Amino acid sequence: MNTFGRNLRLTTFGESHGKAMGGILDGMPGGIKIDMDIILRETAKRRPGQSPLVTARKEKDIPELLSGLNDDMITLGTPIGFIVRNTDQRSGDYDEMARLYRPNHADFTYDMRYGLHEARGGGRASARETLNWVIGGAIARQLPCMKDISISARVKSIGGIEGTDEELHSIVEEAMKKGDSVGGVVECIIEGVPAGLGNPVFGKLHARLGNAMMSINAVKGFEYGDGFAAASMFGTEHADIFSSYDGEIRTITNHSGGIQGGISNGMPIIFRVAFKPTPTILRDVETVDKEGNPSILKGKGRHDPCVALRGAAVVEAMAALVLADELLEKA
Amino acid sequence: MNTFGRNLRLTTFGESHGKAMGGILDGMPGGIKIDMDIILRETAKRRPGQSPLVTARKEKDIPELLSGLNDDMITLGTPIGFIVRNTDQRSGDYDEMARLYRPNHADFTYDMRYGLHEARGGGRASARETLNWVIGGAIARQLPCMKDISISARVKSIGGIEGTDEELHSIVEEAMKKGDSVGGVVECIIEGVPAGLGNPVFGKLHARLGNAMMSINAVKGFEYGDGFAAASMFGTEHADIFSSYDGEIRTITNHSGGIQGGISNGMPIIFRVAFKPTPTILRDVETVDKEGNPSILKGKGRHDPCVALRGAAVVEAMAALVLADELLEKA
Amino acid sequence: MNTFGRNLRLTTFGESHGKAMGGILDGMPGGIKIDMDIILRETAKRRPGQSPLVTARKEKDIPELLSGLNDDMITLGTPIGFIVRNTDQRSGDYDEMARLYRPNHADFTYDMRYGLHEARGGGRASARETLNWVIGGAIARQLPCMKDISISARVKSIGGIEGTDEELHSIVEEAMKKGDSVGGVVECIIEGVPAGLGNPVFGKLHARLGNAMMSINAVKGFEYGDGFAAASMFGTEHADIFSSYDGEIRTITNHSGGIQGGISNGMPIIFRVAFKPTPTILRDVETVDKEGNPSILKGKGRHDPCVALRGAAVVEAMAALVLADELLEKA
Amino acid sequence: MNTFGRNLRLTTFGESHGKAMGGILDGMPGGIKIDMDIILRETAKRRPGQSPLVTARKEKDIPELLSGLNDDMITLGTPIGFIVRNTDQRSGDYDEMARLYRPNHADFTYDMRYGLHEARGGGRASARETLNWVIGGAIARQLPCMKDISISARVKSIGGIEGTDEELHSIVEEAMKKGDSVGGVVECIIEGVPAGLGNPVFGKLHARLGNAMMSINAVKGFEYGDGFAAASMFGTEHADIFSSYDGEIRTITNHSGGIQGGISNGMPIIFRVAFKPTPTILRDVETVDKEGNPSILKGKGRHDPCVALRGAAVVEAMAALVLADELLEKA
Repeated sequence: MNTFGRNLRLTTFGESHGKAMGGILDGMPGGIKIDMDIILRETAKRRPGQSPLVTARKEKDIPELLSGLNDDMITLGTPIGFIVRNTDQRSGDYDEMARLYRPNHADFTYDMRYGLHEARGGGRASARETLNWVIGGAIARQLPCMKDISISARVKSIGGIEGTDEELHSIVEEAMKKGDSVGGVVECIIEGVPAGLGNPVFGKLHARLGNAMMSINAVKGFEYGDGFAAASMFGTEHADIFSSYDGEIRTITNHSGGIQGGISNGMPIIFRVAFKPTPTILRDVETVDKEGNPSILKGKGRHDPCVALRGAAVVEAMAALVLADELLEKA
Repeated sequence: MNTFGRNLRLTTFGESHGKAMGGILDGMPGGIKIDMDIILRETAKRRPGQSPLVTARKEKDIPELLSGLNDDMITLGTPIGFIVRNTDQRSGDYDEMARLYRPNHADFTYDMRYGLHEARGGGRASARETLNWVIGGAIARQLPCMKDISISARVKSIGGIEGTDEELHSIVEEAMKKGDSVGGVVECIIEGVPAGLGNPVFGKLHARLGNAMMSINAVKGFEYGDGFAAASMFGTEHADIFSSYDGEIRTITNHSGGIQGGISNGMPIIFRVAFKPTPTILRDVETVDKEGNPSILKGKGRHDPCVALRGAAVVEAMAALVLADELLEKA
Repeated sequence: MNTFGRNLRLTTFGESHGKAMGGILDGMPGGIKIDMDIILRETAKRRPGQSPLVTARKEKDIPELLSGLNDDMITLGTPIGFIVRNTDQRSGDYDEMARLYRPNHADFTYDMRYGLHEARGGGRASARETLNWVIGGAIARQLPCMKDISISARVKSIGGIEGTDEELHSIVEEAMKKGDSVGGVVECIIEGVPAGLGNPVFGKLHARLGNAMMSINAVKGFEYGDGFAAASMFGTEHADIFSSYDGEIRTITNHSGGIQGGISNGMPIIFRVAFKPTPTILRDVETVDKEGNPSILKGKGRHDPCVALRGAAVVEAMAALVLADELLEKA
Repeated sequence: MNTFGRNLRLTTFGESHGKAMGGILDGMPGGIKIDMDIILRETAKRRPGQSPLVTARKEKDIPELLSGLNDDMITLGTPIGFIVRNTDQRSGDYDEMARLYRPNHADFTYDMRYGLHEARGGGRASARETLNWVIGGAIARQLPCMKDISISARVKSIGGIEGTDEELHSIVEEAMKKGDSVGGVVECIIEGVPAGLGNPVFGKLHARLGNAMMSINAVKGFEYGDGFAAASMFGTEHADIFSSYDGEIRTITNHSGGIQGGISNGMPIIFRVAFKPTPTILRDVETVDKEGNPSILKGKGRHDPCVALRGAAVVEAMAALVLADELLEKA
């Protein structure tokens, strides 16, 4: 299952150390001008190598759009195929990984699922796959129905500590120095979503957002509105009282996080995503090989000390794909 | 979208104050003996009216199975249609609700979505819909591939307090006396799931479980393994070291909650679900009517002071449907 | 797979000799007045027992609508569940069939597929299933977007002979007297479909119509426009020249049958469906039992000498479901 | 909707005069050796330019496989992305077509559907899209479950005349000399399909095959077994009597074409596909422009005088995709 969405469907492919990543975005209506700069801006936000804190992979990650657009970059209503060549494949780093199971990686579970795994860079489990999603999301954002919607995700806490960007970065830097990694929470606020978006039973808007977020590598939890804190509250504390503002009905508070009964109520949609600390750390760790023999995995290779930093761009992209899909349902 | 699942598909219908609830479970293989007692046992677990703490609705909720089985209750491989008549419909309680928007209910969002809403009992937004899910889950549990899998959900905390059943009930009782409601967390542990179940990209096992749980009414968050706590941890703390036990590869700890890279690793699957406090409280609350005029909604009607209590049965049913669906993929 | 459609989804259940037939129609928008008389009119068109020429089953086939409508029969935008009780189940007729494979029936293939089959009346393979489709189609026809669309199917030929209704009926009568059955062709003409409906690649409008028609029991072929005759023609003969009528672009001829490149062009949609002669005949036939031993199957039971007669109502229903589904895509 | 299949899903993109065609084949299990020569052999069968009778387009059509395989061409169980660059794009030929509606082409219906159309070569409506399908089918054929299945399609008649290859080619040559085109029928015989494949209600095996075939450009009809001829027959003529051969139950005749009740019965599957004469002819034709003004479309450009000739390779590819999809359902 490498397809996401119902009305706007993103189907993707690519192993991080294969020839190319790529995808097909199907369902874009015809007649929409696509701005390549917006795609490049979004992919830059998730690109490794921007700071010492993120992995040193150096690809330019410039997608080639192969179909679905005419020469003036106007959509034809047909599927948009795109690829991004993988140019920096130091598979030598990964030789040992073909033999040993890395803790908290998907090597072992892939072997159980498929009978083999692509050791070089984790195959489909690599976070490089999210490049495809960011490209898809960056195109989806250009739909006319998305024009008035702002999607903004930012790192809210790292290692359990909330703070300024500077403070958060120093926590990551400290972990990196120790060859360690650290988890973080990304919060996303979506403004401008009209009331009435979503479905009441199995396609609840927050269930779709949650499903999208939990597709992102390293995510361990999702909550919206008051989230887990609501489980500690009384009904009288949690109530969002309705009021009328210039003829428009809104709630005074937003404990619900913009979604009630699975459907948007016109208030800002707010959710949080928990990222675990990256499993790849630069220390030697005990593990087993495929036969179960105890082994030591040497700490090396590239790694992000905190994936939440780059995760924010992916959170935004997935949110854009979910909202575009829902808006096209009614378009 | 009233269909859940891919290989085992549950499609449901029913308004809480209409003629009947019901559904179609499609995808059960032929030749399986179905035990009606298991269905009745599961529906009893979520049934209202068992204790003073849950709503006083008195339906017997005995499903009638209409197809898909021969006279010996052996599945035919064809869809199993079922209905449960609604017998206790005191719609008088809900007259006011047709006019006023109840805080944190779906009345307002339904109006925005459909242009009208079924005021009597909340229509499709009623938790009575989950009766359909429990029936579907109780049939799914009887698949041969589910035989060695145990799914056990229990209330872990109420109002933020962990404790014995007795302590938790006294918190609910206190809230009920005040005409208030209170939130809670349900934890589910699934044992016996073989390694290799799930998908690496968009159909990650935890994403499907999360999506299922967030379909349940009043759920505000989902986390698995260490969940949100992982976002406060370092990589060295969170690592699940592999080891070999009698030739079987397992992890020493279970921070991952039984799922790595979206695929089960053979360890117990552990997740938690946050339920908000029930929106229906027995106090008068300020709100607006459909025209936006300020109004007072009288506190009355039936209500659960803590939906998490009944939610555990629904959590188990949805987990059963997800696992059965995944197991049938490989069957 | 007992679900049909994408935007308007009909999921069905029921064995002909079980407790009930039924289904769930999901995707009807809210606010539409449903006329029960239209449903009864359509089910009457396919009902057995109307003339000596069709099977003598006597059920009234009055569906009970269980959800999705308020007391004024206005749709709520939620799924419409319905059932029809099976009241006339003379399973005694079918005892022999549990043991012997009837020629051209699905007994043998069901055993191969499911490891067992419901002998009484053919289980899901019974044409009684099409009652569910006619109910679904009769509701779909009441969508506002279907208002200006007329769907009209009629028997075009029986036993290879075109003629008046009277002539066609006398062919069937003759076959019936001999305990035999006879095939026929149903032609359907759909007027009022706007240009631009359908999809260019995998969801071509004629492919969806063809798929729908080939779901009907006993159908062996589908063609639209000139159909198989087009395979004998030259391009110059088959061309539909465009012309302008009062500012509207249309074709002068309609070899294309109203669909070009998978998309409607605004001309009448015309297609034909080939029904084989009913396999159940009232003569003794040679066959084998489940162990492969030669046996004689006694000719008895109820049967339609020409299913094409009742097939026209089902053709219309399935066409209505396909068109409604497509129109809702753009709604 | 540019995705075909349920268990083995082919999603495609590409305008005939854009940068590339391509697709993603998702659902191939891991561990299968893929032979590139088989892919090239199949694409060669549908390639234009092989004889004077087919269009003179000269691309080599060599697909580049971008993912889903390791260096030894073993599948990883992950999606296989592929592209084929378009190298021969004489868009000058098509300038006039941007302005005028070509008879029996999809220009007009695309404008109605999308508000614009890609005039150069017909965009997605071009038969070049079927190159993607042949690549997908050629990979699907290499599944282990397909090993014993032979799929063989051939032109059965052209212009209504059955004959040897030589006779059929002379009919096409004659049409070409006159700047005309001619229709044809392709027959496909599939041997080695086990009994029990397919579904009884909406996913009938012949309905899926028919849907697949009617996705092919220029197809106007589909029939299996006796097809339309069955509509002229009596039940006694059409009966396939069961018999036992060395303990295996088979039918003596094969009027059913290998499928009964939507499920394969182990006999050869036989179906026929009607191709209309190519709409592009080399004569001047009357038409209208986008404003409805009468115009003359000059006969020029490349064209196939008989698409049925190349259609056989596409028929085989689509049949392979359908069967692989069904076999993987049970795998």
